Amino acid sequence: MKRHPVELQIEKADNAIVAEDFELLMEIYTDDAILVVEPGRNAVGKVQIRKAFEAIATYFKNGLHVEQNGMEVLESGDTALVLANTVISSPNFPSTERKATYVFNKSPSGNWLCSIDNSYGHQVIGKYA
Amino acid sequence: MKRHPVELQIEKADNAIVAEDFELLMEIYTDDAILVVEPGRNAVGKVQIRKAFEAIATYFKNGLHVEQNGMEVLESGDTALVLANTVISSPNFPSTERKATYVFNKSPSGNWLCSIDNSYGHQVIGKYA
Repeated sequence: MKRHPVELQIEKADNAIVAEDFELLMEIYTDDAILVVEPGRNAVGKVQIRKAFEAIATYFKNGLHVEQNGMEVLESGDTALVLANTVISSPNFPSTERKATYVFNKSPSGNWLCSIDNSYGHQVIGKYA
Repeated sequence: MKRHPVELQIEKADNAIVAEDFELLMEIYTDDAILVVEPGRNAVGKVQIRKAFEAIATYFKNGLHVEQNGMEVLESGDTALVLANTVISSPNFPSTERKATYVFNKSPSGNWLCSIDNSYGHQVIGKYA
């Protein structure tokens, strides 16, 4: 089955996270993207997002592993919603599956870029009050 | 707390569903919006979406009630992702909470319109194979 270009972008992002290639990772985000760092705390824009990923790498003692255990892409025009069972683990962190939600926008040049990265799904509800 | 314009649109949609005012309901969707009718089956565009809501109203014996039990809006530029605990019920259907996901796009005139309506959240994964 042909994979959606958004799935390929997510695979690229997961590999970049594992490799700690933050330069490559930032290519996947829009300029004003929002990343849920933890429920109640967001990083906005590439500078903040990159810093957040650097801190995450340190937190996981440079052993973070990310993979997707099932994914669906719902596309409408230049917008795509991804529902994903995202599994994260590291030597100091037991394997945990999150009900992740990602939104991608297609740029005028046809590139799908991530504008909203919320790996915590519905866990964010009520955390920003 | 000031409510996000997207929350007001969702309230308008919920009321329109309960009132079976499909003319008003269609005002909330983009022209090429996608609605998950059930996991594995989508309606695309206003004509299909309206037909789906008419069938849903009949299925629930014209007694469908929709309300939101907590909601978070994550906004980036002209795109917003909504995570919602959506509760549906009717006289012939026990109250059920769904982990709903909605995507809205801001039109050039500043109106937020729903482009992706997936009240089933992660239940869609693996249902389109």
